[in-house]
Amino acid sequence: MFLFYSDYLEGCHPAILERMQDTNLVQTPGYGEDEYCERARMLIRSICGTPNADVHFLVGGTQTNTTVISSVLRPHQGVMCAESGHINCHETGAIEHSGHKVLPLAAKDGKISAESVDKALTEHHQDASFEHMVQPAMLYISFSTELGTIYSKDELVAIRKVCNKWNIPLFIDGARLGYGLASSECDLTIKDIASIADVFYIGETKQGALFGEAVVINNESLKNDFRYMIKQNGGMLAKGRLLGIQFEVLFEDNLYYELAAHADKLAARLTDAFRENGYGFLVDSPTNQVFPILPKDVAESLGKDFGFELWQKVDSEHIGVRFCTSWATTDDQVDSLIMAINAIGKHY
Amino acid sequence: MFLFYSDYLEGCHPAILERMQDTNLVQTPGYGEDEYCERARMLIRSICGTPNADVHFLVGGTQTNTTVISSVLRPHQGVMCAESGHINCHETGAIEHSGHKVLPLAAKDGKISAESVDKALTEHHQDASFEHMVQPAMLYISFSTELGTIYSKDELVAIRKVCNKWNIPLFIDGARLGYGLASSECDLTIKDIASIADVFYIGETKQGALFGEAVVINNESLKNDFRYMIKQNGGMLAKGRLLGIQFEVLFEDNLYYELAAHADKLAARLTDAFRENGYGFLVDSPTNQVFPILPKDVAESLGKDFGFELWQKVDSEHIGVRFCTSWATTDDQVDSLIMAINAIGKHY
Amino acid sequence: MFLFYSDYLEGCHPAILERMQDTNLVQTPGYGEDEYCERARMLIRSICGTPNADVHFLVGGTQTNTTVISSVLRPHQGVMCAESGHINCHETGAIEHSGHKVLPLAAKDGKISAESVDKALTEHHQDASFEHMVQPAMLYISFSTELGTIYSKDELVAIRKVCNKWNIPLFIDGARLGYGLASSECDLTIKDIASIADVFYIGETKQGALFGEAVVINNESLKNDFRYMIKQNGGMLAKGRLLGIQFEVLFEDNLYYELAAHADKLAARLTDAFRENGYGFLVDSPTNQVFPILPKDVAESLGKDFGFELWQKVDSEHIGVRFCTSWATTDDQVDSLIMAINAIGKHY
Amino acid sequence: MFLFYSDYLEGCHPAILERMQDTNLVQTPGYGEDEYCERARMLIRSICGTPNADVHFLVGGTQTNTTVISSVLRPHQGVMCAESGHINCHETGAIEHSGHKVLPLAAKDGKISAESVDKALTEHHQDASFEHMVQPAMLYISFSTELGTIYSKDELVAIRKVCNKWNIPLFIDGARLGYGLASSECDLTIKDIASIADVFYIGETKQGALFGEAVVINNESLKNDFRYMIKQNGGMLAKGRLLGIQFEVLFEDNLYYELAAHADKLAARLTDAFRENGYGFLVDSPTNQVFPILPKDVAESLGKDFGFELWQKVDSEHIGVRFCTSWATTDDQVDSLIMAINAIGKHY
Repeated sequence: MFLFYSDYLEGCHPAILERMQDTNLVQTPGYGEDEYCERARMLIRSICGTPNADVHFLVGGTQTNTTVISSVLRPHQGVMCAESGHINCHETGAIEHSGHKVLPLAAKDGKISAESVDKALTEHHQDASFEHMVQPAMLYISFSTELGTIYSKDELVAIRKVCNKWNIPLFIDGARLGYGLASSECDLTIKDIASIADVFYIGETKQGALFGEAVVINNESLKNDFRYMIKQNGGMLAKGRLLGIQFEVLFEDNLYYELAAHADKLAARLTDAFRENGYGFLVDSPTNQVFPILPKDVAESLGKDFGFELWQKVDSEHIGVRFCTSWATTDDQVDSLIMAINAIGKHY
Repeated sequence: MFLFYSDYLEGCHPAILERMQDTNLVQTPGYGEDEYCERARMLIRSICGTPNADVHFLVGGTQTNTTVISSVLRPHQGVMCAESGHINCHETGAIEHSGHKVLPLAAKDGKISAESVDKALTEHHQDASFEHMVQPAMLYISFSTELGTIYSKDELVAIRKVCNKWNIPLFIDGARLGYGLASSECDLTIKDIASIADVFYIGETKQGALFGEAVVINNESLKNDFRYMIKQNGGMLAKGRLLGIQFEVLFEDNLYYELAAHADKLAARLTDAFRENGYGFLVDSPTNQVFPILPKDVAESLGKDFGFELWQKVDSEHIGVRFCTSWATTDDQVDSLIMAINAIGKHY
Repeated sequence: MFLFYSDYLEGCHPAILERMQDTNLVQTPGYGEDEYCERARMLIRSICGTPNADVHFLVGGTQTNTTVISSVLRPHQGVMCAESGHINCHETGAIEHSGHKVLPLAAKDGKISAESVDKALTEHHQDASFEHMVQPAMLYISFSTELGTIYSKDELVAIRKVCNKWNIPLFIDGARLGYGLASSECDLTIKDIASIADVFYIGETKQGALFGEAVVINNESLKNDFRYMIKQNGGMLAKGRLLGIQFEVLFEDNLYYELAAHADKLAARLTDAFRENGYGFLVDSPTNQVFPILPKDVAESLGKDFGFELWQKVDSEHIGVRFCTSWATTDDQVDSLIMAINAIGKHY
Repeated sequence: MFLFYSDYLEGCHPAILERMQDTNLVQTPGYGEDEYCERARMLIRSICGTPNADVHFLVGGTQTNTTVISSVLRPHQGVMCAESGHINCHETGAIEHSGHKVLPLAAKDGKISAESVDKALTEHHQDASFEHMVQPAMLYISFSTELGTIYSKDELVAIRKVCNKWNIPLFIDGARLGYGLASSECDLTIKDIASIADVFYIGETKQGALFGEAVVINNESLKNDFRYMIKQNGGMLAKGRLLGIQFEVLFEDNLYYELAAHADKLAARLTDAFRENGYGFLVDSPTNQVFPILPKDVAESLGKDFGFELWQKVDSEHIGVRFCTSWATTDDQVDSLIMAINAIGKHY
């Protein structure tokens, strides 16, 4: 049985385990002040083209989102995001637990528009009783999004302009940053991301490492005392070297992108297979997540040999499902799945 | 110029000021442990038919909502409410500030249905990743609602049944409880409210007093240590007697209902006047708030002599507005307004 | 029986009730945007000699402390205060509830020294693992203190210098500001307080009004969005006029100081009576609180006719108690108490 | 240069890396729902003699403390701990960030007594204004403590009785549990710990693993919805298998205790060496942390070849320092250090 439930089903790329083994008995200071972290920070600054950025390593996404957002906002402020944003849906209210309202904006295929952000801010500040409402004061977007879609450069630049207009920071959740950047439809580089976002992170957990997210803070005014925040939010790993080592391995030779491109390519093959057999999709995703709409019996049949997530009921006969590929997915696994799809045959 | 902006434009009913003057130099203990509060608590228990209820006095609504809700919920839990619920819209995120997500439900005219509550709970508990989402664990409704509407007894009983089914407490925000109960369309008594809600409050600020909300806790499991919560949330008035005195005056001779009925009656006259002249309404409210839809020039014209709130844009030509009556509104004020409406004439 | 338990045993100065009666039916906007509040703000700015200060009215002390402190601090920061500070001892952890550690400093008679503040800051910033500890980032002191003592001008100026050195704001809790300023031992004026503190408040609840605290923000960087914070913390009174009216009455003709001076004078008479009869004190207080140490039988005997607070066990034979005077205390009440003390006779 | 700064200077025991390699490509569900975690849970329940305990795996200590404590307390409640407790000193106010005051108790050598706990609770509940103070509602102790000391069975049983008397849960931070249990002076087993604590955790980060803490919840009333809490606090590792694997390796063959005993034994050798040369100690620690008091020149001299932590200034001539041993410390490293101590010679 091959599983496509998520992009964190396996351990990590073997090169990482190897490096961990090689360095295992080296004695280092804790909490990210070791040489591996330092080198990883240098690599990331260089790749991002932001020599003055602060780079911090945290363990997981929920923790990272909470730490960044609560570091920036004052108590009466909230963070805008897509309705489907991870912080709004799948983090057990971690942002609210830190005291802040998540302000969802209508989204299309997981993406929000510059216009909708501008509208929300305009309406808030024009309202006579604005002080009785949470002040929108930060924008959170995901790249790639929770639905596998990606913003174009034009879209991001437009969003950036709105953020400038209202003087609010833009935070990009890059839990799946690599899958986005490696997509054949992407017209952005990591340097673009770094120049557009006030703060963003490079996700590893879903992209080849055991765990780890690298926060890159470009906006000078957001840098102060961030390490206190990491510690308070439980994200300061005692053996911080583990994060440094993993990022070093993934970024010293471009491995991060290679793995992401590999996954995107396999996902594209799945997309093609479903499309060629007449299936529609919940959303057109150009990255490592594929969301075909399946008749219930097809879902059941495929489910015997393959694991995938039941995502969303479509109608009484159909269900939208999610297949994820990852750095660890093999051609064989995808071949098997495609054969199974083809075997079921055309769907009209 | 007569103002109908809100139901808290004036001070308080003269009988309250008189009583405050009469008792001014009496020495009492602080923090609600005085004889006035004690008598007011007895009166409220008696009127509610709940001899064992705990009754606490707080100063304002936002404070009361936060204190009650954060007293009940555990950190991972949220409170369901109508999209238009006060805690969701107009309390500057006080609930989120206390750590909890507000979980808005679709509402019609400010009211939610038992079905929608049941659906939200069912979906949460059926979801495979339920632990990654905020757990709905309390229901907040307003009576009368923020749009002046009221639940029928059948509707409330149905909601109560859903709460029982899922074992979650029902909290009724009664900032405008009296206006609801005094409505000609209301088929509920305060005893019904008290028997249906786990906890609710009787609002005074908008109903004849200077300020004050009386929280009535019926559910034994919600009573523990509530006074600590009041203190922590800044709601424990040093001179608590002021709250006791005001509730005593309002409830010892039924003044609370008389004032509410007075306001509702005046509001009904306004509603009739707008209707007779051909205006529609954002919502049909049977209480002290009236929400006519006015052509912009009519709104402008009325606005020269009368104060009212611009509530919501309807289209490029029309705006929905709000007129509030209160215990302090006079027949003369309403007569003047009706004359002005009639003078403008029919609207088709 | 005469009660000296606290300084909030009665209602308010009659002039306030009278003004409330006179203005009762005037229609005003809510939430502090009325003309009474505006005039009170002007008065306070003028009296403080700070024409550019922001002035806000809140209902009670706990609420005010929480609102001010949580408005200023970032999540990893804490507020230093005397061990005996109200925020550390008697607010049910309201500051911690808002997310911040209270950092107690050793105090003498309720007062902390500039040296101890400097030492705490030095130690924090010299510690190798400073990021693993809460960052001291604000200083809270009370004037007069919880033990009735007052800082001299030299002491406050020294504290101010330390705050400047470390660039942290100084917040003065003035719940009993008047009693401090009116003391015969005080060498400070309200203008001094206003020029030394970044933010402070003028307490009314314990000084002649029904309730109310006026926050004065001098430091430009602390002004932004404070009204959102008031609302979120449940301190924005719907009928804000009540606060404006009370402050206007107390400050338009110097009544605030007269009442405080009256209470201080009566307290001094009590102090003299205890001292002349040979009693010691827990602390020498030059304001409206008196803390004599009484043999248990004397405490019991006095307790038959007078109310006072049992403050602190001293030894198996003695107890420290607190007598408060206030604007409402009469010469007769104090005469009676002094007679009773004299009747018990000398204590050696 | 050999480092004794802490017990988390190296990676992990080689058997763990080996197991991670062996299982690297196995596909598992995330978030702790894999077979490795399940087996580790079974092992831990068995070793603890608590077949019905809930066992959860988290990444680090601060996160674990916050998750457990905030899961248990209501908003007005605080957690008692030793002044030197980790939650009070070295977690950047994470507990306060979750809304709760830490209530420090006087401690001797990092340990608190049953009497001091009983006294704190008695005083709180006897105080007339108890509702104005944070309610002590949980007890946190560390085993071994932050100063390397351990409670005896009698001491723990006495503390348990006080907890029973007041009906408050006892939470034992076992970040260094193994080092405590393996101490030659320890008269407790892990079964004792499990039968005495309502909830405790078994620390791995400092005891042979890369990271990881296993929370064991015995008290039925504390079990509910704990996984929501883990997620909300950012502690739910996507690749939860990593935690299961590590605990499995450490507990399937007693490795956990062997490694701890190894470290304790090396620490005892260090203690002997310092003692034999005439040095005193900040505290007598029978576990893996040693706290000798060194003349400044000795500290400087040793510091050239060995890393250790400057812990606390003793007087102008002496400083207390900390040496940690761990599973990774070798006999050679300790031999070298002892030789250096001996070379410096006797200290009188």
